[in-house]
Parts: sequence; structure tokens; C-alpha cells
Amino acid sequence: MPDLNFDTISMAHGSGGKMTEILLKSGVFSLLGNEWLDQRGDGAVFSLPGRIAMSTDSFVISPIFFPGGNIGDLAVNGTVNDLAMCGALPRFMSLSFILEEGLDMKEFWNILSSIRNACAYANVQVITGDTKVVERGKGDRIFINTTGLGQVHPAAKLGASFIKPGDRILISGPFARHGMTIMSLRQGLEFDSNLESDTRPLHLVCHSLLEQFSESIHFFRDPTRGGVASVLNEIATQANCGVQLQERELPLDEDAAGACEMLGLDPLYVANEGIFLAVVSSKKAEACLELLRGWEHGKKAAIIGEITSEHPGSVVLQSAFGGRRLLPLLSVEQLPRIC
Amino acid sequence: MPDLNFDTISMAHGSGGKMTEILLKSGVFSLLGNEWLDQRGDGAVFSLPGRIAMSTDSFVISPIFFPGGNIGDLAVNGTVNDLAMCGALPRFMSLSFILEEGLDMKEFWNILSSIRNACAYANVQVITGDTKVVERGKGDRIFINTTGLGQVHPAAKLGASFIKPGDRILISGPFARHGMTIMSLRQGLEFDSNLESDTRPLHLVCHSLLEQFSESIHFFRDPTRGGVASVLNEIATQANCGVQLQERELPLDEDAAGACEMLGLDPLYVANEGIFLAVVSSKKAEACLELLRGWEHGKKAAIIGEITSEHPGSVVLQSAFGGRRLLPLLSVEQLPRIC
Repeated sequence: MPDLNFDTISMAHGSGGKMTEILLKSGVFSLLGNEWLDQRGDGAVFSLPGRIAMSTDSFVISPIFFPGGNIGDLAVNGTVNDLAMCGALPRFMSLSFILEEGLDMKEFWNILSSIRNACAYANVQVITGDTKVVERGKGDRIFINTTGLGQVHPAAKLGASFIKPGDRILISGPFARHGMTIMSLRQGLEFDSNLESDTRPLHLVCHSLLEQFSESIHFFRDPTRGGVASVLNEIATQANCGVQLQERELPLDEDAAGACEMLGLDPLYVANEGIFLAVVSSKKAEACLELLRGWEHGKKAAIIGEITSEHPGSVVLQSAFGGRRLLPLLSVEQLPRIC
Repeated sequence: MPDLNFDTISMAHGSGGKMTEILLKSGVFSLLGNEWLDQRGDGAVFSLPGRIAMSTDSFVISPIFFPGGNIGDLAVNGTVNDLAMCGALPRFMSLSFILEEGLDMKEFWNILSSIRNACAYANVQVITGDTKVVERGKGDRIFINTTGLGQVHPAAKLGASFIKPGDRILISGPFARHGMTIMSLRQGLEFDSNLESDTRPLHLVCHSLLEQFSESIHFFRDPTRGGVASVLNEIATQANCGVQLQERELPLDEDAAGACEMLGLDPLYVANEGIFLAVVSSKKAEACLELLRGWEHGKKAAIIGEITSEHPGSVVLQSAFGGRRLLPLLSVEQLPRIC
């Protein structure tokens, strides 16, 4: 961390004047600098041939530091993953902070460092940004907006309209880890466990799937807010088909399962930040699964269900004991501010 | 406004579940819908040939409604203008809300309507977005991030590196209006005046300048936070040259001047949202001025100064009576949260 003559963020850091310049020079520009950012214009200028994907997210997670990551790498990975779900490799990103007066500079620096590392790992450049400061009590330490641009794989034909009955639904790994990590922290629970957020970029494994199976991949989605059940409901609604899920195939870790049980939450509705669902043609489902299992974070990947022409618009869970229950779209808030 | 069974924003609206869907369907999608937004993916996919400009801003202005506009059209115009300053015509925009629990739905609806109108006027499409909700006391009613993409004029060669001694500095209209409107509101002052924010899009007039004078236009910048003086300091520093300003040429309205005097503020440091500075070659300066004065909001446009090889890095104001004073980059916060 650079030697600065202030320990916390003050209103002057958002003025657009000298203090803003000192703040940006000390951190953002030194850590994230590149040919675009260094020009310090009102925006950045570049070219991006082919199909472009754009995605935006504002991150308001509380607490801002958690096992497995912090709001900084979460903000980068979150937008990288939204681009990946469009079948794109991330290229450029904008980065916008809303800081609360009084934010500790060490924390801000740690978050910036995580952003730098996450960007380097995902091979994405921060090319433009913004910093605002609000008075104490008008924000919550730090909110981050990331908006990303990526280049879509030429063979990608992704979307609800490509989904058809018979398609298989794959999950890339165990679910409910991110949400339960945050929830446990917030409840002050000390689990004797290794539970930590699964925040990580997913673009490379998605790219590999598209490279090898191109048009057999019909849909990608990362089950963040609302969890696996909400994404499956979206699929059922948008594709106007049914979703049938096999409970015994669902890869749920003991740690996450235990935390859910203790807090009375259904893991299928808990947020994730490092897994995705793929809807693929039945013919290629096993081959896709094999590819996923060869990925370092995909050892527990599974085919968890199927698209049906029955019960269009609904998601039905087939229990291990043969029972069936509906997984509705929830209207109540299970876990506020998990991203 | 649609008939909804809730009057205010609740935490459930940020859950990613049913309530989020109801909120989005009721407003965002019905008002802003287009072929990209209607697909409701994690991102939007499109093509954009040529040079692309990208710019981002988070808007945290307080109060959120003010004479001349609100946080909604401000957020659209602000990003449209940052693109315009890059020499671009706006095309696509992402829109991300951070709402505070308890926000009045009527206010949210009014803001959405303003966003829709501002987008229509600027011919920009909202193609992807995000909505988060934070607890009461952890935000301030509404923060908005807009990130825009535009197509850069093929002839645009803009940047500090193109500025050279002898170039003239033009201003497109009277300054200090936006900042003084907000400040007066916040201080509860009732001026017997027509003072209102100058928030408006600037892309068309910038485009016309580039169409007609192409490479004679060296630099555009809108003097938002920090005002005219801060932008001129940026120019002096980045171009490593001096800036000499003629006080008698500065187009300051009586209303704004009066408010500044009453509050003891220097209008040159007060924020604007609807004017820009252009640095142009001396040969074309008068012709550019003529074009500007033909624009409906440019009647008071003026050539306010010149780039010099003397005093590089500094901005010097030549007073109407022959005195000279330095305009430094301020380190204190004159007007917090004016955008």
C-alpha cells in the first residue's frame, strides 16, 4: 500500500479535484493502468470486431470481506461470468465505485488489489471508471459497479429459444457455497467447516465447451441471486417447457448442506458465484460432462435433469425416494445482499 | 404508473426472485423494452463496427429531483455526454440501480420515465441492467450507474496530445448552472430566479463540429465535477502547456452569478451538466464559434482563452481590468454529490 497522508476516504476524494487525483493516482491508476486507462479521458476508445456481449452488475454485498474473496474479486468475477454465460471471452471492463465517507484506506487498497488480480487472471482490462463518495450513513462502505464487454464465440447459439424437450441440464459443481458462507458470517455462526465462497471466473471452461460442442450447447446461466431453482424457473418460463430435476444427482457439499439445515434454508434457492448451469443436447450431454469433470473445479459436475414437454413453465424435483415436488419461483427474500 | 400492490421498494425487490420480476416487468421492461432487453439474458449481444467509445458513471446526486431534471435524465445525459466528449454518437447503454428500501414507487416511476425520455431523445438503447436493494440507512434512496457505448466519428482525432500552443478554447454556453441549482436547493435558498440545471445531451452539436471541422477539433471535455477550472487544469497538465483565460469572455448568467456570490463560491469551480469545452485550432476557432452559436443552447458560446507555451501546467485568468491570477486545482470539496 502506498504511503498516503490520509487513513480513510473523505468527501473531498469524490470532488473531482486534487484529492480525487491523489486517490486515483495512489491506487487505481498504479494498480490497474493500461494504454486506455492511462489516457484518463471521459471514456476509452477501442475496436472490438465480431459479436460483442455487454453485461452490468452493481455489487452491494455485506460483509465486504468473506472467506474465499471480497467485494472486489466478486465484482470482477461476477461480470466476467455474465459475459461467459453469453458465450463470450471477457475483454474490457468499466469500474465504478460508490465509497462511503470513512472507508478505511487499507480496506480500499485490499479490494483494489483483489480487483487487479482477478482482472489479470481473467485477462480483462479496466479501461474506464468513476469514483463517487457519499456521506457517512448514506452508503455502506463500498458499492462497486462493473460493466464488461466480451467477444462472443463465433459458434455460440445460446438462448432460451434454442432449448428443446429432451435436452439435458448440467451443473458445473457443488452449489449453495457462496450464499451460505455470507449468511453464516452475517449470523455470526462459527461452523467447524471449510465453507467458503466459490467466487471464480467461468469463462475458460465455457469457452472450451463452445469450442468442442458448439451448437449442441443451448444455454448457459450462472445461478447467483435466487440460486439454482430460480434459474430453472427462468428456463421453464422463457423456453415454455418443463424442467425435471433429479434430487439424487444434485452435488451438495456437506458443509453447505449443514449450514442450510441449521438456518432452515433450501440450498436450491441459495446464491452461487462460481458455478453454472448448461442446457445441452441429449446426444452430447455425457461428453460435456466429461469435459466439465476434467476442469479443476468441475470434479463434482453432474447431469441433474432434463427439459420436458410436460408441465411447461414449471420445475419439478424428483426426490431420491420417488416423490415429486414443485420448485416455485420464491417471492420472499431469503438472503439479502449476497452480491 | 402501473397499478401495483406495493407503494415502496422492499428488500424482496432485490432478491432475484418473484418480486424482482414484478418490479422489472412493471417498469423497466415496459418502459425501456427493445430487442436486446426483451431477451432478459445475463447480458446483451450485438455488433458495433469501427472505433467504439465506452464510458461509465455512478450517479449519487442529492436531492434526486431538482429544477431542470432528476437523477434519471442526469444519468443518461451524463453518460451520453462522456461519449460525446470522446467524439462518439451514443448507441447502447447499461443501467444499474442501487435502491434503498423504502423508496417511493412513484418517485422510482418518475425517474424511470425520465430515463426513457432521455434515452429516446439521445437515440440510445438500454440493452442490459441490474437492480439491487439495500436496507434502510445503507443507501440514499437511489443510486444509478450508466455505462455507455458509442461509435466514434471516423474523423475524430481527440486527446490532450493533439493540443498545441495557439489553440483556442471555446465554451458552449453559460456555466455554473447545475451546481448552483443543486446547492441552492440543498441550502434551502429560494432565489427569485430561473436557475435550473443545464442537464442535456451534447452529442449532436459535438458531432456537427467533427463533421465540419474534423481534425481542427483537438479536445472535448464537459466540465462536470470541479467545473471549468478543473478541466482547464487537466488540459494544462496533460498537454504540458499553459492555459490563458479571458475573464471578460466568460458567459456567466446573472442567476448563477448571484447564487455564487450569496454562497461565497467561485463559479469557475462549480459543476455543469450541459456545456462543454472544446480546444480547436486558431484558424477554425471563429467558424466553430459560429456553428455553436447556431445551436439552440449555444447562443452564449464564446472563445474564452488560448493555449500557451508559457507557464506549462498552469491556468492563468486575465481579469477584465488587466490583473492576472492563477486558477489552481482545488483540493477541498466545494459541492459534494452534485452528480
